[in-house]
Amino acid sequence: MNFASDNAGPVHPRVMAALIEANEGHAPSYGADRWTAEATARIREVFEAPDAAVHLVATGTAANSLALATLAKPWDAIFCTAVAHAQEDETNAPELFTGGAKMIPIPAPEAKLTPEALRSAMASVGLGVHNPQRGPVTLTTVTERGTVYSLEEVRAVTAVAKEFGAPVHMDGARFANALVALDASPADMTWRAGVDAVSFGGTKNGLMGVEAVVLFNPARSWEFELRRKRAAQLFSKHRYLGAQMAAYLTDGLWLDMARAANGAMALLVEGLRALGGTPAWEPAANLVFLRLPRQVHQRLRATGATYYLFEGPLESGDPDEPLLCRLVCDWSTGPGAVDRFLAAAAGQPLPPSVPPC
Amino acid sequence: MNFASDNAGPVHPRVMAALIEANEGHAPSYGADRWTAEATARIREVFEAPDAAVHLVATGTAANSLALATLAKPWDAIFCTAVAHAQEDETNAPELFTGGAKMIPIPAPEAKLTPEALRSAMASVGLGVHNPQRGPVTLTTVTERGTVYSLEEVRAVTAVAKEFGAPVHMDGARFANALVALDASPADMTWRAGVDAVSFGGTKNGLMGVEAVVLFNPARSWEFELRRKRAAQLFSKHRYLGAQMAAYLTDGLWLDMARAANGAMALLVEGLRALGGTPAWEPAANLVFLRLPRQVHQRLRATGATYYLFEGPLESGDPDEPLLCRLVCDWSTGPGAVDRFLAAAAGQPLPPSVPPC
Amino acid sequence: MNFASDNAGPVHPRVMAALIEANEGHAPSYGADRWTAEATARIREVFEAPDAAVHLVATGTAANSLALATLAKPWDAIFCTAVAHAQEDETNAPELFTGGAKMIPIPAPEAKLTPEALRSAMASVGLGVHNPQRGPVTLTTVTERGTVYSLEEVRAVTAVAKEFGAPVHMDGARFANALVALDASPADMTWRAGVDAVSFGGTKNGLMGVEAVVLFNPARSWEFELRRKRAAQLFSKHRYLGAQMAAYLTDGLWLDMARAANGAMALLVEGLRALGGTPAWEPAANLVFLRLPRQVHQRLRATGATYYLFEGPLESGDPDEPLLCRLVCDWSTGPGAVDRFLAAAAGQPLPPSVPPC
Amino acid sequence: MNFASDNAGPVHPRVMAALIEANEGHAPSYGADRWTAEATARIREVFEAPDAAVHLVATGTAANSLALATLAKPWDAIFCTAVAHAQEDETNAPELFTGGAKMIPIPAPEAKLTPEALRSAMASVGLGVHNPQRGPVTLTTVTERGTVYSLEEVRAVTAVAKEFGAPVHMDGARFANALVALDASPADMTWRAGVDAVSFGGTKNGLMGVEAVVLFNPARSWEFELRRKRAAQLFSKHRYLGAQMAAYLTDGLWLDMARAANGAMALLVEGLRALGGTPAWEPAANLVFLRLPRQVHQRLRATGATYYLFEGPLESGDPDEPLLCRLVCDWSTGPGAVDRFLAAAAGQPLPPSVPPC
Repeated sequence: MNFASDNAGPVHPRVMAALIEANEGHAPSYGADRWTAEATARIREVFEAPDAAVHLVATGTAANSLALATLAKPWDAIFCTAVAHAQEDETNAPELFTGGAKMIPIPAPEAKLTPEALRSAMASVGLGVHNPQRGPVTLTTVTERGTVYSLEEVRAVTAVAKEFGAPVHMDGARFANALVALDASPADMTWRAGVDAVSFGGTKNGLMGVEAVVLFNPARSWEFELRRKRAAQLFSKHRYLGAQMAAYLTDGLWLDMARAANGAMALLVEGLRALGGTPAWEPAANLVFLRLPRQVHQRLRATGATYYLFEGPLESGDPDEPLLCRLVCDWSTGPGAVDRFLAAAAGQPLPPSVPPC
Repeated sequence: MNFASDNAGPVHPRVMAALIEANEGHAPSYGADRWTAEATARIREVFEAPDAAVHLVATGTAANSLALATLAKPWDAIFCTAVAHAQEDETNAPELFTGGAKMIPIPAPEAKLTPEALRSAMASVGLGVHNPQRGPVTLTTVTERGTVYSLEEVRAVTAVAKEFGAPVHMDGARFANALVALDASPADMTWRAGVDAVSFGGTKNGLMGVEAVVLFNPARSWEFELRRKRAAQLFSKHRYLGAQMAAYLTDGLWLDMARAANGAMALLVEGLRALGGTPAWEPAANLVFLRLPRQVHQRLRATGATYYLFEGPLESGDPDEPLLCRLVCDWSTGPGAVDRFLAAAAGQPLPPSVPPC
Repeated sequence: MNFASDNAGPVHPRVMAALIEANEGHAPSYGADRWTAEATARIREVFEAPDAAVHLVATGTAANSLALATLAKPWDAIFCTAVAHAQEDETNAPELFTGGAKMIPIPAPEAKLTPEALRSAMASVGLGVHNPQRGPVTLTTVTERGTVYSLEEVRAVTAVAKEFGAPVHMDGARFANALVALDASPADMTWRAGVDAVSFGGTKNGLMGVEAVVLFNPARSWEFELRRKRAAQLFSKHRYLGAQMAAYLTDGLWLDMARAANGAMALLVEGLRALGGTPAWEPAANLVFLRLPRQVHQRLRATGATYYLFEGPLESGDPDEPLLCRLVCDWSTGPGAVDRFLAAAAGQPLPPSVPPC
Repeated sequence: MNFASDNAGPVHPRVMAALIEANEGHAPSYGADRWTAEATARIREVFEAPDAAVHLVATGTAANSLALATLAKPWDAIFCTAVAHAQEDETNAPELFTGGAKMIPIPAPEAKLTPEALRSAMASVGLGVHNPQRGPVTLTTVTERGTVYSLEEVRAVTAVAKEFGAPVHMDGARFANALVALDASPADMTWRAGVDAVSFGGTKNGLMGVEAVVLFNPARSWEFELRRKRAAQLFSKHRYLGAQMAAYLTDGLWLDMARAANGAMALLVEGLRALGGTPAWEPAANLVFLRLPRQVHQRLRATGATYYLFEGPLESGDPDEPLLCRLVCDWSTGPGAVDRFLAAAAGQPLPPSVPPC
């Protein structure tokens, strides 16, 4: 019962099959292979962006940092929420890859940039040669708190950026989960809403380790390639990145996996509400922060359930005191694991374990 | 008939099997999984270095750049040959990850640092606050020209570095190929010969994309971890890196693959010498630069053989004029492909293609 | 009537005389001259820190950035107020010189770090390999809003830093003005209060362009020298930096100048209060933010008085509406200029201009 | 008798007078003052370049590094001689300010780039995404060995750069000395000869510490300003930089000083040849490397003469053995000091010391 992270889940069997299929004889290296070409074509198709520059990298930190480096100058400010992954969880990778741009963390109640707060932050820099200049805005959806920007909210953020002539990057580490939550098209969620570049995640949604950076304006595509190589993210055996991403986008696998993860989470939240659980932010996709009574945590931990618990102590105190935790479902979680988790939470006998997928 | 690069070869089936085996249910992310622990243990064992710090990354450029960044200060000079991969083929990644250290390219006749040239280069810097300071030495073996440092040669280089108190890094992108060429132990080729840090390559020798950085002095292990994360090389689904490397080191697979690659190259060189081929540098492992008569190249290209040709023009000129090319075998090349290549070179009918091992 | 900046003021005649005196014949370059030695000795004496490392640079941005670079790793967070000069007014110089450390701006009501806010910020980073690590704290006094930390307040900030094992830097661009405001000793205001490194400003207080970085623990003195040279701040004709700083510290000139500037400001504030002026933050030294009725600004501007006005419009609106401005006095301002400014503010005839001291 | 460096010489009295003149009352800070405007206008006039971007900085390392940073991308190679100041004497400042570009040191017999060696170096990079890309060429004149490029030689170098579409930077730390040696115009020596950016030195030729970066194409002027501020080279009391440079360019002072320095060196070389001195490279300006018999050095050192001696030992060995040294004259050296030096070298009684001009 691992609800710690969608990074803890396995790779989808169809992706593994694609890797094995690609593992036949020799193939051109460094991205000149046919799987990479196919992945690129499919991403352009999915985004309805036939001219977009598409580049694969292996980690979400690489995708974000290289996208931001391509959009920002070293003397720029980059605008993000105070809880942005790029701000809190990348150990200054954006500062490294941008050559020392400055991240401006903006308070964000639901982990979403609001137009007002963004405008105020952007207005306060770039006044002269002494100040950090106005650089890109980056927003994450699914956010780091499990919420999802509506299309209107995305557009409101990009509108502020455009007031200042600044480009917008979307950290889509959980892009598919946000997309199915909105029931929107990739184009609607991105370039039609004013987004210039996307980190299109795959790893958290059933791949082994591939993310695509999509630049809707391809003018800086070659610059991106140089940056990617220099960042040690140009893979020699690139076909294995291409094969994963191509399989991901075949027959809607990526959407099916996201729906499965979001669906499992919806069941889980419903069950935990019944047990006294209170979401800290409105659940929208496959990631949720919620408060559960201490005794519920005690029961869960006793069965070996894995997830992040932020408050404590676990062992002693009022059994009804709500303690904050984070739970994540991935494509492989399945209703069986949810049932077992809920049974454990309720102190009931556990139903038999069902193999994932 | 792809002799362009060992990066063009496939992943060994036992490595693919290990990936599938590791793809079971949930596992801790970011390197806390058991496969990574196993890979680490095996590397320490293979190197007879129970305390070594071992960290996996996904590309050779990452391994070299992060190792050098850990050994060098931003105001240091890093000493390498003029043809070092880190100097010529990493698009300034070492400069990025070291924060701007300076690479000092040293002329090297066989792509090997000589003690005299190294001493002269090291003596010319670090004289005062105005000069780049003396930083690490990096040597590559198998070298970029296909030669291999003897143990004596490694020791002679590290001895010069030690005269100046400088650490030594070994770029072992083809570590296994050098090792079996020398019939030495990993410890003899590295720390017993004065090497402080190794980029222990796997990708060119049958893995999908894993290299290990081995620091024999583990004092900077945590610093390395921070640098790795910041460099976007800490993988969330780390188990797939661990599983590859663990399989690589099981039952001598890594040595068997290197022997197969070197063996194929030995056959190839022997055959090409008979056809007028002249190695530009003494062949020692799985990579060779040699000159072949123009007509031999013409015949090879006519059959679709793939490899790097550095001189020309191919189409016209004296049919006997020798033109320089580079040929590489990998673990999967096999005697069949060599036979076909030699037949093509000789203008004979091609034997049937045999599926790679 | 220039109250825009203490950077707009002239160099003190005794400092000019020292420059002329130092301009005799040849002298060793790059800091090996006797004026630099004298400046160093005097700074150590003034700080009662005989072992401190003392290095001269030419700008405040250089002093801050190089001090922070010496205290922070590239993967660290640096804690400052949201209005810190290093955060807002140095165009990402700290990010450049630290190699990409992350500035964490902390809300600070009076431009002073509070122990609670600092503790909370420091507690939220450094939790693991994914997060920026805990690096130095930097505080400015005189603050960017004109307030001055009491000794207790400095000690309270450094105590929090010490809880986390972090070093503390003081941006003392207006060090002397803070010191005379507190009537404290340099040692009390710095190392005895837990400060590890100081940017000891001279330029704003009557020098042409010299600041000293004082590191109370000299262990990193050589590293600082390398960083300074690499940062293009090692002057060849260093004697002219040394001569300025030595003159500054002779016969208490630096304190006299600071007292003159603070004294002029005290008169100014008193006079402006009488005209309806309301300080936005408690005036303490030579820099003040205050609100003045629109009509007062109109009168001042009509006479050509120079200073920063942050609210508007100036030309139209309620004549009594208070509009925020910033005023700065320097060593040369003198009571005459204050009288003229106050007369202009009051709409009275201007007394004759007196040449600055 | 200080012949160690033109950095050891004093500031010209007319420059000191200009500083005192500029030290009157308040003036706008950060370059908005009238002295900076005047200096800019004069530089444009002197270079016959009315649109050039002109920016003052305080050190030669800053001028070179910021000029190169403006011309190079972080993934570029920068081509220079192996003895270039930017390569050997700036402790990796170019790597810092460019964000990690790679310096390619090219062997250069007389410290001058030859077209052939440059073409060969430029041809060997930029072949693909793996390689450092072709960035700017930088040449120094007066060179680091005391030679001066002829106009033909400058044009030959820039022609090669243009073949590859690369811009050219000139390190003119001793620009005036080269100019008077050639009897050329600034425009002829720079933009008319294909140079795109110049570090126009003043410090070594009688200023206190000012260099101008001149960009003949002003398109990146604002970028330069941001880089300069971020590099901590934007001076608050900028008038003192402007005043120095304006005085330097008034009534040909800069050329007179350079002629004086070159003239003193011509006398010195002539006298030393008579004493068995042999220049290692052809003397052309105010800097010379030559070999003098050991006994000559012994006599000179006995009188306290200061200069760099590169071979030894001084104390013992064949009295006639030639030992390499470097001698530099500056504007203030004067014939008297040359006579004294020659008398000391010859073992004759020293004429009385004459105060420098």
